[in-house]
Amino acid sequence: MEKSRLQRQFDFILEADREKSILRQTLIADGTAHENDADHAWHMALMCVLLSEYANEEIDVLRTVSMILIHDIVEIDAGDTYAYDAQAVSTQREREEKAAERLYGLLPDDQGARLRALWEEFEAGKTPEAKFARALDNIQPAMLNNATDGRQWVSHGVRLSQILSRNKNTADGSAVLWEHSYNNFILPNVEKGRIVEDTPR
Amino acid sequence: MEKSRLQRQFDFILEADREKSILRQTLIADGTAHENDADHAWHMALMCVLLSEYANEEIDVLRTVSMILIHDIVEIDAGDTYAYDAQAVSTQREREEKAAERLYGLLPDDQGARLRALWEEFEAGKTPEAKFARALDNIQPAMLNNATDGRQWVSHGVRLSQILSRNKNTADGSAVLWEHSYNNFILPNVEKGRIVEDTPR
Repeated sequence: MEKSRLQRQFDFILEADREKSILRQTLIADGTAHENDADHAWHMALMCVLLSEYANEEIDVLRTVSMILIHDIVEIDAGDTYAYDAQAVSTQREREEKAAERLYGLLPDDQGARLRALWEEFEAGKTPEAKFARALDNIQPAMLNNATDGRQWVSHGVRLSQILSRNKNTADGSAVLWEHSYNNFILPNVEKGRIVEDTPR
Repeated sequence: MEKSRLQRQFDFILEADREKSILRQTLIADGTAHENDADHAWHMALMCVLLSEYANEEIDVLRTVSMILIHDIVEIDAGDTYAYDAQAVSTQREREEKAAERLYGLLPDDQGARLRALWEEFEAGKTPEAKFARALDNIQPAMLNNATDGRQWVSHGVRLSQILSRNKNTADGSAVLWEHSYNNFILPNVEKGRIVEDTPR
């Protein structure tokens, strides 16, 4: 018997639960644990609701929040790729495409197509919504790394050039939030030697 | 010097991080860990985006998702109150009011007032958005409890009358989702003796 629409929706929803077990490199603010993918997406979604006034271009907040909620779903199959692990990054796209195929395929066709398109939009980073979501995806961990006195930057020997490269489009999403992140989360940790200063500030 | 609007927003956002350390009674679907408040809110928000078509009344999805994202913020100060712990439930309202005062007070006045009103709306459960959000707040843990073969229902000796009482308004948010939850998550566990059958099904 063919599965009902509702059954397919719940199949996806239950599968999505696995995001809660995917640990990120980032520590939570009190430094006691690694953040998981669900934590991260929730935090970004909350930030989106509170900070959308700072988007460079007007954004559809519901579209952006929806994009944020599902932006890491592919990691259920593809795993978390640490932004500063060059080898993992090189195979990331292929692993994630395959994951998107299976995971969004669990949903009813219309919804699966809509969510997958939203994820592709996030990956491409061209629309105002995707630019803002990607800005938050970079600012949220910078905020937490700063809260733990840069512990993960120190332990991975992260260099300023890597952070600036990762954030090269953050200001396209929000100039105001990028300035805040740079001045409050990044620069103080360069000054304290927790981020390797290999390029001019 | 008075804090800037953006600084107050980030004060709240960083404080909200503590939701990630508040463990719920519910286990994640594979049974390996307790779910935290951020996990739970993310999962509900995702469900809201995917299942809003089943709301009894038309809902504003962004309002509902925003409500869901912050519905447990007060637990940062007030702690998680297990739904079936009568003594904790009796002091819950007072503890949570005090928490709301402090936590939403971190935000700029307009945003703090808006979010607090959204939380009060969730608590009151009268609007279509609040009714749907509250339905998800009950269905999401039932789904997970079923996924772990009712382990938490068994370990707490939960009775069917308690579950039905907790869910007395779930069908007001969504008759379709309540029916699905009752037939797929609750009833099979009554039949298998994992929920104490102290009242007619």
